[in-house]
Amino acid sequence: MDTTKKTIIVFSGDLDKLIAAFIIANGAAAMDDEVTMFFTFWGLTALRRPGGKSLLQKAFATMLPRGPERAGLSHLNFGGAGPRLMKRVMRQQNVTSLHELIDTAREQGVKFVACTMSMDVMGFSKDELIDGVEFAGVATYLGEADEANVNLFI
Amino acid sequence: MDTTKKTIIVFSGDLDKLIAAFIIANGAAAMDDEVTMFFTFWGLTALRRPGGKSLLQKAFATMLPRGPERAGLSHLNFGGAGPRLMKRVMRQQNVTSLHELIDTAREQGVKFVACTMSMDVMGFSKDELIDGVEFAGVATYLGEADEANVNLFI
Amino acid sequence: MDTTKKTIIVFSGDLDKLIAAFIIANGAAAMDDEVTMFFTFWGLTALRRPGGKSLLQKAFATMLPRGPERAGLSHLNFGGAGPRLMKRVMRQQNVTSLHELIDTAREQGVKFVACTMSMDVMGFSKDELIDGVEFAGVATYLGEADEANVNLFI
Repeated sequence: MDTTKKTIIVFSGDLDKLIAAFIIANGAAAMDDEVTMFFTFWGLTALRRPGGKSLLQKAFATMLPRGPERAGLSHLNFGGAGPRLMKRVMRQQNVTSLHELIDTAREQGVKFVACTMSMDVMGFSKDELIDGVEFAGVATYLGEADEANVNLFI
Repeated sequence: MDTTKKTIIVFSGDLDKLIAAFIIANGAAAMDDEVTMFFTFWGLTALRRPGGKSLLQKAFATMLPRGPERAGLSHLNFGGAGPRLMKRVMRQQNVTSLHELIDTAREQGVKFVACTMSMDVMGFSKDELIDGVEFAGVATYLGEADEANVNLFI
Repeated sequence: MDTTKKTIIVFSGDLDKLIAAFIIANGAAAMDDEVTMFFTFWGLTALRRPGGKSLLQKAFATMLPRGPERAGLSHLNFGGAGPRLMKRVMRQQNVTSLHELIDTAREQGVKFVACTMSMDVMGFSKDELIDGVEFAGVATYLGEADEANVNLFI
């Protein structure tokens, strides 16, 4: 068993949960751990390109936030006022934004895996997601989790 | 330590989270892992019989979905429109429904444990749940988690 | 690897999830496991003093529940009616309240760690939290998780 590997299933698309997931991932990567993040369901929204296709076929895709800048909060969202407030406080406190956290994760070699079954259900195609994402299913997740000593579902 | 055992605490009764939980459980069982799912709080709703008692004494029980066909989404629920849309897309994409996922889990020998304390709080009696469910508390969960190498809370 | 250590990241401030987290923590502590709970984001509300400061500078802090007696539910909250109902049922069923669960956890030596970055974002100062809480960041969490055999995110 390899004590230097971590996996995180990123199920939620909420800004606060995404921030928590990336802070843990980046912290582990900074300690030279190998980290794999599996993005499923709403978590896939964190990997969407800001631009992307102008017309989406699938209803879910159109209703979901386009990239990390549009994520809502799991609590006290207030139609977007909560996320704006949280982002402002984070800037004031010099806490890095979700966008920067994602960039740092990629620079540190955190592996991003998008769940292909979830992509089908949510109506996301591969070219709608940012570069450097791998595509796989639950068997890949389980293989990696078996090698890791910390496995979280967020 | 047994690397072929997994436990999942199923706390949520949301359709999307239940689907995620059962896909992970079934994937692990298909790889010959021993899998135990502990259903607590809202997760217990996944184990309710579709029929059941005509009159429920407890208020929570009456307000909660009766079995997996009635589960809502954790996000974009839209008073039930979200789950209907997700189910239709899943059918189109040949993704198995929650009901089928539960059947597959039972066929593959995934162990279902209902948290007895949660049953008291939520007002569920044993005969309201589907057959083949075991009843236990947190000590049983911890005993199994100590033998597992992946333990998730969903 | 120490099989007698558990960590729980308490991200949620929902009454039901807090109850679940403390029941698992107390169960493990009763089995002589070493347990560390990391309180981040909304989970910090469980550690707030009931009294505290009369005037809060930060908007999040004012909108958040002041201590465990004010937590809402993750589901069927009904503007506070859900938590009241759950608490009444718990009393009837002799299930200990969140307040008692927290006391038991402290008596059993469960370690409480407040995430300092989350405190900055949520606008909590150290003297607003109950006594006996340690303050640390993600590196401390990862160090403890590496020594534990069960690590949950709730």
